[in-house]
Amino acid sequence: MNAFQASLPLTLDFEVGAIRRMGDKVAPFGTKVFLMVDPFLEGSEWVAQVTASFIERGIEYLEFYDIVPNPRHTTIDRAVDQVLRAGCDVVVAMGGGSAIDSAKAVAFVAVHGGNCWDYTERLGEEVRRPQRRGLPLLVVPTTSGTGTEATPFAVINNPELGLKCAIVNPFIYPDVALIDPQILVSKPPKLTALTAVDTFCHALEAYISIHCTPWVEMVALQAIRLFAANAQRCVEHGTDLEARANMAFASTLGGMAIAGAGVTVSHALGQPLGAMTDAPHGGTVAASTPHVIRWTLPVAAEKFATVAGILCPETLGLSVNERAERLPVILEQLFTTLGVTDTFCSYGLRPEQVDEFAHTVWTSFNQDLACHPKPINNQEEVAAIVRMCF
Amino acid sequence: MNAFQASLPLTLDFEVGAIRRMGDKVAPFGTKVFLMVDPFLEGSEWVAQVTASFIERGIEYLEFYDIVPNPRHTTIDRAVDQVLRAGCDVVVAMGGGSAIDSAKAVAFVAVHGGNCWDYTERLGEEVRRPQRRGLPLLVVPTTSGTGTEATPFAVINNPELGLKCAIVNPFIYPDVALIDPQILVSKPPKLTALTAVDTFCHALEAYISIHCTPWVEMVALQAIRLFAANAQRCVEHGTDLEARANMAFASTLGGMAIAGAGVTVSHALGQPLGAMTDAPHGGTVAASTPHVIRWTLPVAAEKFATVAGILCPETLGLSVNERAERLPVILEQLFTTLGVTDTFCSYGLRPEQVDEFAHTVWTSFNQDLACHPKPINNQEEVAAIVRMCF
Ligand SMILES: NC(=O)c1ccc[n+]([C@@H]2O[C@H](COP(=O)([O-])OP(=O)(O)OC[C@H]3O[C@@H](n4cnc5c(N)ncnc54)[C@H](O)[C@@H]3O)[C@@H](O)[C@H]2O)c1
Ligand SMILES: NC(=O)c1ccc[n+]([C@@H]2O[C@H](COP(=O)([O-])OP(=O)(O)OC[C@H]3O[C@@H](n4cnc5c(N)ncnc54)[C@H](O)[C@@H]3O)[C@@H](O)[C@H]2O)c1
Ligand SMILES: [Fe+2]
Ligand SMILES: [Fe+2]
Repeated sequence: MNAFQASLPLTLDFEVGAIRRMGDKVAPFGTKVFLMVDPFLEGSEWVAQVTASFIERGIEYLEFYDIVPNPRHTTIDRAVDQVLRAGCDVVVAMGGGSAIDSAKAVAFVAVHGGNCWDYTERLGEEVRRPQRRGLPLLVVPTTSGTGTEATPFAVINNPELGLKCAIVNPFIYPDVALIDPQILVSKPPKLTALTAVDTFCHALEAYISIHCTPWVEMVALQAIRLFAANAQRCVEHGTDLEARANMAFASTLGGMAIAGAGVTVSHALGQPLGAMTDAPHGGTVAASTPHVIRWTLPVAAEKFATVAGILCPETLGLSVNERAERLPVILEQLFTTLGVTDTFCSYGLRPEQVDEFAHTVWTSFNQDLACHPKPINNQEEVAAIVRMCF
Repeated sequence: MNAFQASLPLTLDFEVGAIRRMGDKVAPFGTKVFLMVDPFLEGSEWVAQVTASFIERGIEYLEFYDIVPNPRHTTIDRAVDQVLRAGCDVVVAMGGGSAIDSAKAVAFVAVHGGNCWDYTERLGEEVRRPQRRGLPLLVVPTTSGTGTEATPFAVINNPELGLKCAIVNPFIYPDVALIDPQILVSKPPKLTALTAVDTFCHALEAYISIHCTPWVEMVALQAIRLFAANAQRCVEHGTDLEARANMAFASTLGGMAIAGAGVTVSHALGQPLGAMTDAPHGGTVAASTPHVIRWTLPVAAEKFATVAGILCPETLGLSVNERAERLPVILEQLFTTLGVTDTFCSYGLRPEQVDEFAHTVWTSFNQDLACHPKPINNQEEVAAIVRMCF
C-alpha cells in the first residue's frame, strides 16, 4: 500500500435556496463581511437574498465587483487594501472560479500581509507559505467547473509578467461552501459546457496522476460518472435543477480529486495558454486533452479504459487496450457535442511561440508536469507535446 | 434535489508504519497525553513505538488499559477522573471500536464535565449536547469495522440499566486518525470477519437510509466494493497488508456513510442485543441483516439490486427485482463463508424476552428505526421483525 491522506476541511452544503442562509452561516465567523461578487451577479436577486440575510442578522457588509476571468493580481491586492481599511473580519464570495480564487487569496493575504503574487508558486523563486489560516471565508460557486471550493489552490494571473501561477496552501480552503443549483441556471450553454469539461479534466488528470490515491480514485471516478450523466443535460436543459445539482457535485468532487493528486499535462498547458490569450479556462484545458491521452497511452491504459467504459458503456466488451485507445475519439466527439471545439490555434497560439510557451510551462507549471504518469524531462519535451496539439 | 451536507472534519492518514509518527502528530495539540490502549496491545511493540515517539518529542503520557468490548460508562467516568487529576491535555487511543469510542467520550466529557451517560441519546430523557469540542483526540483503529474514527458517535454500554446508548455529537470526531495496516494483522480470522461484516452493514444501512445523500451513496458503495474484494482475503490471509489496508479504508468509508445517513434496523436491533448479551457487535448486526432485507423488499429494491450486483456480478443479467431478491441469500452464503453464523438465539435472546427487547429497541434506538426506508410505527412492529429473525 502507498501511504495516503484524506481530509475535507470545510463544510459543503448543497441546497436549492441555500444562499438565503448565508447570514446564519456567517454569524459564527464575524460581523463585517467583505462581499466579493462576480460582476454578472451585480443587481441580481441572488445578491439581494444574501445581503438581506446579512441585514436580518445585523451583519455589516462591503460589496466588491471588480473581478475578471483569469483574475488579476492587482485586483486582489486592491481588494486586500479595502478589507484592511474597512476592518472586515470575514470574506464571502459568490461567483465563478475567478471570483472564488480571488477571495481565497484576499482572505489569506489580508491576514499574512504583502502582495498576493509573493504567495504563488514559481520555480526557483522565493515563495511565502504561511502555515496559518487567513480570514474566515464562505463561498457560493456559480459555475460547476473548477471545484475551487474544495481545493487548496488559488490561480492568479499576472498580465505584466504574462504568467498565471497558483497559491498552493492547505490553509486557503474556504470554511463553508453553499452550493445552490438555482444560481447555476443562468449559465449560458457555452459556459456550462466549458466548465463541465474543466471538471472532467480535473477528475481524469487527478485519476491518472502519479499521486492518485484510493480516496482520489473514488471521488474522481464518481465525478466522471456524474459528468457523463449530466453535462449534456445541463447544456441542453439549463433549468434542470437536478442535472445542475449533480454537475455541481461533480465539480466539487473534481476539486477534491485535484486537491489530493494534482493536475497533469493538460492543465499545465491550459493555464499559461489562458494567461497568454485570456481564453476560457475549460476550453484551454480541453484543447489538449485528447492529444495528451494519445501521447500518454499505454502508460495509463487501464485507467483510460475505465474512463472510456464510463463515458461509453458500449466499449465494455473491448479489451483494456482497445478501450483505452478509444478514449481520445470518445472525448473528441463528446467535446464537439458539447460545443467545446477550440484549439491552441484558434485561441491564438502561433507556431513560432511554441518554444517560449514551453519555457513558461516548464518553469511555472513544473509541479503539474511532475504529476503526469509519463515522465516529462525537459522543456523540449514540453514543446514536442505542444506541437502535437496543433 | 434533496439538500445535503458533506464534511470530513479530521485528517485520515493511511500508512504502513504510521504509528511511529504519533509524536509528531500529537505535538501541535498538547504536551501530556492520556493514552488509552486496548488491552490486547499491552506490552506490544506497537505501544512501544508510540510511547517512544512521545519520549523523542518530550511529550509526557499516562497509560490506561481498562477497556472491555461494549465499553462501560463506569470505565469512561474513571478515565475522565484520571485525565483531570493528571492534567492531560490530549487523548490518544489505540484499539478497536470499544477503545476509540471510550476515548471519544473521555476527551469530550473531560472538558464538558459530569458523567458520560448524561451525554447519550435516550428518548424522552434529558441529554447534554454541548456545541464545543473536547480535548484534542488522535486515534489508531486496530479493527476494520466500526469506522468510528470517522463518525460523530460513541456507543456506551450501561450494564446497570441493561442499555447501550450513543453520544451523537459533531464535536466528538477525532482530530487525526492514523491508520496503520500493520496493527490489523494480529486480528484473528473470526474478529476480522465480524468487524468486516460490521463495515458492510454500515455501508448497506446508510445507503438504504432515508437520509442517504449523493455523498453517502458514493462512500457507501465504495465501501461495499472494497469489502467484496478484500474481506475474505483478510480472513484467509491475515498478513496481506494490501487487503488489510483496503479493508481499513472500507471501514473508514463505512463510518463516513453512517455519519451522513445513520444506520437502520439491523443496528437498532444489534446494539441492544450486544448490551444484553455482550456478544460481538458485528455478529449481532449480521444476525438480522438478511431477514431485515427480506422484510424491506421491495421498498429499496433498486438499492438492494445494486449491492447484489457488486457482491455477485453474475446476477447483473437479472432484472432489478430478481437481483434484489437474491441479496439475502447472497449475504447468508457470504457471512457463512466468512464464519459469521450466529443468530439471535445462539447469542442467547430467548423468545419470551422479545417484547421487553422490542421495548428497548423502540425507546433507545428510535433514531435508527426512523432512518429505515420501510416505516416502523410502534414497538409491536419491532417485535414482529425480531420474531422474523429467530
Ligand atoms: N483554484 C482551483 O482549484 C482552480 C481549478 C481550476 C481552475 N481554476 C481557475 O478558475 C478560473 C476559471 O473559473 P470558471 O471556469 O469558474 O470561470 P470564471 O470564474 O472565470 O467565469 C467565466 C465567466 O462566466 C461568468 N459567470 C460565472 N458564473 C456565471 C453564471 N452562473 N451565469 C452567467 N455567467 C456566469 C463570469 O462573470 C465570467 O465572465 C481560472 O482562472 C482557472 O485558472 C482554479
Ligand atoms: N462509534 C461508532 O460510530 C460505532 C459504529 C459501530 C460500532 N460501534 C461500537 O464499537 C464497538 C465494537 O468495536 P469493534 O468491533 O472494533 O470491537 P472491540 O473494540 O469491542 O474489540 C473486540 C475485541 O477485539 C480485540 N482486538 C481489537 N483489535 C485487535 C487486533 N488488531 N488484534 C487482536 N485483537 C484485537 C479487543 O481487545 C476486543 O477484545 C461496539 O461497542 C459497537 O457498538 C461504534
Ligand atoms: Fe481547471
Ligand atoms: Fe456497527
